Amino acid sequence: MKSIEDCVVGIVGLGLMGGAIAMALRNCGALTKNSNTAGGDRLLACDTDSETLKAALAEGVIDEGFPSPENMLPRCDLVFLCLNPSTLLRFLDTRMNAFKPGALITDIAGIKGNIVDAVEKNLRADLDFIPGHPMAGAEKGSFGGAKNVNFHGKNYILTPLKRNKSENLEFLKALICRMGFGRITETTADEHDRKIAFTSQLCHVIAAALIDCESDTGITRFGGGSFEDLTRIAMLNAPMWTELFLENRKELLARIEQFEKSLDKLKNYIVSGEEASLQENLQQVRERRTAMIG
Amino acid sequence: MKSIEDCVVGIVGLGLMGGAIAMALRNCGALTKNSNTAGGDRLLACDTDSETLKAALAEGVIDEGFPSPENMLPRCDLVFLCLNPSTLLRFLDTRMNAFKPGALITDIAGIKGNIVDAVEKNLRADLDFIPGHPMAGAEKGSFGGAKNVNFHGKNYILTPLKRNKSENLEFLKALICRMGFGRITETTADEHDRKIAFTSQLCHVIAAALIDCESDTGITRFGGGSFEDLTRIAMLNAPMWTELFLENRKELLARIEQFEKSLDKLKNYIVSGEEASLQENLQQVRERRTAMIG
Repeated sequence: MKSIEDCVVGIVGLGLMGGAIAMALRNCGALTKNSNTAGGDRLLACDTDSETLKAALAEGVIDEGFPSPENMLPRCDLVFLCLNPSTLLRFLDTRMNAFKPGALITDIAGIKGNIVDAVEKNLRADLDFIPGHPMAGAEKGSFGGAKNVNFHGKNYILTPLKRNKSENLEFLKALICRMGFGRITETTADEHDRKIAFTSQLCHVIAAALIDCESDTGITRFGGGSFEDLTRIAMLNAPMWTELFLENRKELLARIEQFEKSLDKLKNYIVSGEEASLQENLQQVRERRTAMIG
Repeated sequence: MKSIEDCVVGIVGLGLMGGAIAMALRNCGALTKNSNTAGGDRLLACDTDSETLKAALAEGVIDEGFPSPENMLPRCDLVFLCLNPSTLLRFLDTRMNAFKPGALITDIAGIKGNIVDAVEKNLRADLDFIPGHPMAGAEKGSFGGAKNVNFHGKNYILTPLKRNKSENLEFLKALICRMGFGRITETTADEHDRKIAFTSQLCHVIAAALIDCESDTGITRFGGGSFEDLTRIAMLNAPMWTELFLENRKELLARIEQFEKSLDKLKNYIVSGEEASLQENLQQVRERRTAMIG
């Protein structure tokens, strides 16, 4: 892989995360326009929404915009596929021939098992694909919300394939650090999907259930921060999270059931007035949370 | 009631909230030392922990500290009782004769039904007691954490009694605004306990259950903010929250069951792969959360 300073990078899908990645690549200084490439254009993006492309060009976030990928992909040394899982799978199915020979590809999908399966079956032999998941987001979606996504110090999960070239993996990890992420974890797709079912999907289900069970919008007069914090992520992108929940169904259901057991334990202490057991459990929780995050 | 500038104020219990209230009273300019009172001392506090009193005096948060209330209460025109509910009830039982004639008293307990009952039964005829609940807090408790409590723009609930003098209610509301709170809601103790069971207690039970069901402290490598936000309040003061959960048992259990039903609905959509229903529910949740908080 050449130096990032000599690469042309393509973003497929300039939504919330695609936009945030384009901004991070631009702002970290890795992708300023330069004369090494034809026309100096180095940060390309394709999106079906022409207004998004227009805005991204006007803000200087990208150098060139494309309504569809066929003219963009052949120019890109590195491609970020920033699509919902189902769109990503269709894209890999239909656009495989458009990639530049030897290109490095990565994605940002919140589920990795089915993506890895598809890549392992269908990837062209000359391409390298490193599945990834940047652990960041924002409540207000689409390109307009991208500037509110903060990568600084955040987690980034990679689920490398056996066939990945180690130089490409090192290249991508260095770029991720440069974009501001604080910690990169390499793991398997299965392990990713198991852990994410807990830290991300279960939390979104809980936030949604909390909002679902109270119809009085004036309830916020009684809020002190807890309710607001627990339901911030209920401002979710419904089509995307529907996909994530259903695609990771088995792991997510296991986590929901585990949570229900813990909730039931606390509920039973309250029902039966077991003061000492309740207090002991809450104290253990406090200590465990402190050990987890501090 | 005289002007706050001529009052001597006493804080009973200089923990997290007592400390934060003392700081807010001091910082808003209502309680600078002045010569209208004997010795100019206007902000008094009692606490059983001598180190806390020493620190509060050294930091200029209070003017005088007392190891017990009997010498402090007779001097105070306004008293903030900043105690856990059970300690507060005992205090009202044993210290009623120590208050200054005509004093205005308020509390900060997170449950109001039993406090209001006790006050209505036992309050001295010359005293006025306005039950209150400032909706603010911080994870790291005791006086040392008080500076991290932010009152700015927060909610404050008052559950006035029929016998409260309207001039005292207006006086307390003006002072609450001056301390930085953004919205005061007056309601009944029953309504407070019903709503708080949802916005506060249920959220704390959920956060505790989330931590309870995962023992791997390394799970945070897979966190993207959701898990961190949903479990911040799992750093709870175990004895106090045990009291709050058990004292408000009936309302809290009703809320837990309501939440379980909503969680079950989402779970069933996932189990049966009802994509359209799941997506529709998530979209409704997003819209409702937006209407609630924006």
